Amino acid sequence: MESYASESEYLHALADRAALPEGFQCAVREVTFLPRERTGAQPLKMNLSLLLLDHESRDFGAVFTRNLFPGAPVLIGRARLERPAIRGVLVNNKISNVCTPRGVDDALGLLDRLGGLTGARGDDFLCASTGIIGWELPVREMQESLPSLVKGLSASSILPMARAIMTTDAFPKVRAAAADKGKIVGIAKGAGMIEPNMATLLCFLCTDVAVPRERLREDLAWCVHRTLNRLSIDGDQSTSDTAILLSSGLKGPADPKEFRAALLDVLAGLAFDIVRNAEGIGHAIRVRVDRAQDEATGLGVARAVVNSPLVKTAVFGNDPNVGRIVSAIGDYMGNTGGKLDTGRTVVRMGGEEIFSNGCFRLDADKERRLCEYLRGRAFDTKRIPWPQHDRTVDIEITLDGVSPGVEILGSDLSYDYVRENADYRS
Amino acid sequence: MESYASESEYLHALADRAALPEGFQCAVREVTFLPRERTGAQPLKMNLSLLLLDHESRDFGAVFTRNLFPGAPVLIGRARLERPAIRGVLVNNKISNVCTPRGVDDALGLLDRLGGLTGARGDDFLCASTGIIGWELPVREMQESLPSLVKGLSASSILPMARAIMTTDAFPKVRAAAADKGKIVGIAKGAGMIEPNMATLLCFLCTDVAVPRERLREDLAWCVHRTLNRLSIDGDQSTSDTAILLSSGLKGPADPKEFRAALLDVLAGLAFDIVRNAEGIGHAIRVRVDRAQDEATGLGVARAVVNSPLVKTAVFGNDPNVGRIVSAIGDYMGNTGGKLDTGRTVVRMGGEEIFSNGCFRLDADKERRLCEYLRGRAFDTKRIPWPQHDRTVDIEITLDGVSPGVEILGSDLSYDYVRENADYRS
Repeated sequence: MESYASESEYLHALADRAALPEGFQCAVREVTFLPRERTGAQPLKMNLSLLLLDHESRDFGAVFTRNLFPGAPVLIGRARLERPAIRGVLVNNKISNVCTPRGVDDALGLLDRLGGLTGARGDDFLCASTGIIGWELPVREMQESLPSLVKGLSASSILPMARAIMTTDAFPKVRAAAADKGKIVGIAKGAGMIEPNMATLLCFLCTDVAVPRERLREDLAWCVHRTLNRLSIDGDQSTSDTAILLSSGLKGPADPKEFRAALLDVLAGLAFDIVRNAEGIGHAIRVRVDRAQDEATGLGVARAVVNSPLVKTAVFGNDPNVGRIVSAIGDYMGNTGGKLDTGRTVVRMGGEEIFSNGCFRLDADKERRLCEYLRGRAFDTKRIPWPQHDRTVDIEITLDGVSPGVEILGSDLSYDYVRENADYRS
Repeated sequence: MESYASESEYLHALADRAALPEGFQCAVREVTFLPRERTGAQPLKMNLSLLLLDHESRDFGAVFTRNLFPGAPVLIGRARLERPAIRGVLVNNKISNVCTPRGVDDALGLLDRLGGLTGARGDDFLCASTGIIGWELPVREMQESLPSLVKGLSASSILPMARAIMTTDAFPKVRAAAADKGKIVGIAKGAGMIEPNMATLLCFLCTDVAVPRERLREDLAWCVHRTLNRLSIDGDQSTSDTAILLSSGLKGPADPKEFRAALLDVLAGLAFDIVRNAEGIGHAIRVRVDRAQDEATGLGVARAVVNSPLVKTAVFGNDPNVGRIVSAIGDYMGNTGGKLDTGRTVVRMGGEEIFSNGCFRLDADKERRLCEYLRGRAFDTKRIPWPQHDRTVDIEITLDGVSPGVEILGSDLSYDYVRENADYRS
């Protein structure tokens, strides 16, 4: 488990990880604009980011949201998965470009201009947007920023882009792993609206080892299913969730098992970073379900517990109101028509058995220990603006089936979550 | 739509409604105890309530939670549905008596004692408990209070019991309706943890018209399905939800249609009261879905919107972040494998069209109007401790199917919700 003593120590670690693999450059640029959807508004700031391959590559893949109202970048990206090769990705924060009258044309126009500036075609680019849903992109201001964006390209570090894609995130997120002769580097943004598949989550991964397109896509889907798809901050899956993996191939082929393990490592690290950066988080919660009837039931129970506002607020208050955990399990199973031998159900928090043989196992001493446990797992968010990797509230549930264990990561529910989301746009 | 100018005006209205039907008495009594699950705790106070028929009646019915970890009162109540007749209901708040080693025996012992004190048998009673899950009832203190509880029986008003069953409720809830020569009077408690079927909701209904058991149970299930089952405060269905209907029959038979309509009226009123009393509520939200493929899809979409923490916090902040509504629809439909012609989907808030023909319909003027709309629908909870029946945030969604409209009532998500639930037990 990682632990950092200061923000500068964390940023130091990020800087080390953030060196771009061979064959990649990136650039970021701030854009100022007045939103047309709000009168008398102050100018807003958006960041444009570009991740560019030195040469186009056929080895790329992407996983997108399953929301039925996807953003224009998702529509464009899905169509471009079948293209022979790709050159890079253009990303903006602040406005997510979802279901506006000219959304797809707006994005295509930006990519065409970008193609002209990089000696490629517009069709060679993917894009991604995150932020307010329903507003239109400030296309003119973005177009005007593209030349200076391209001029600012640099092959050194992806850290500026990890910062530029943030919305309400508190800190940038970068993870890296060695893979044979090369490496994989990934960045992500995502704070609220994280679940159940991906999140308002943008994730960009680049590697300089060569992985053929089909295997690269299989590996990406396999790893995302086990990492980004097992987060849950508030139960909402956004219109814009996107994870993209690009390979330059310059360091030659990698052992397939080693590559998949390295990719899983990078994505698991980013998944943890995202949860620890959930909006207004006070505690990270990890729910493990063993012995469900099947994987879907196990994941459903774990999500029901980690998404229960009553469980989340109790954890926020360091209040071991463990009855709410058992209630959330019974609610989910009862209302999805599931069967459960409640006498064989065992529930633990922080290793303490709180329910078994059909009964709660509570006493005053255990209650006091659980209180201390929750207090000790609380993030010190007032003083410490970097992720506290050593702290998780662990809830373990054993059911009556045979399925192997599954885990879901989530967060508590705090005043700050409400504050951030009650007027996110102002 | 009702509206009250002062708390005393509201309590006046309640007092008028609360006159017991013929053949019923009720009583309440406070019990002080030290919880064994918490050391060094201050004494806690619990209310015991008794609703008693003058004579046992075979015409009674109940609807219980579907949670797979039901409380002891639910287990007892289910078994007693087949008994020839019932005499009354014993209710306590503060501790819900769920899954404790002696929970069922504790409750049966209390009912046996109550039988002895009322000239009936313990078997002739139902019971209901609400409050902390997992703690044991203070049986000794409750037993000792039973004689004075029975001595306090009165045939005048159910209002004291409507107050005594409250937990975090801000105000008592009573509804009444005439039915042929008699009446129906109902009370309820329930604030958080309300969904999707019933709630941590206790509801007691009594009538003096005669309704045969089978029809009474059909009517109760039909009406609960359309009222109490269409609330959603925080997506959690509790271990203890119970609605009980008792008939003394003293006013003779009622027209079946008239009785069902009166019962629906009482339950719909209580459902509104419960939502307007949600923990920390700032706005009531009513989501209507028309033209879903089927009723289940319509209810699912409505619940997804009203339960989305992002929608709830935006409404709390009077922020018309309407993109989150559309995102919640797309998330639910996409992740339940539903099909939807997004081009035929229409979404309105406060009558303003915000999405149609596949696009958001937003501009600065509309945004300003929506802000004003949300501000005007906010409850003045600081100054006004009675339900503001004239205020609802209305969200209307039209899909691409043929099913008739369905509605779900819910609440926003506020700082106060977090505060109340972060340490509910202290």
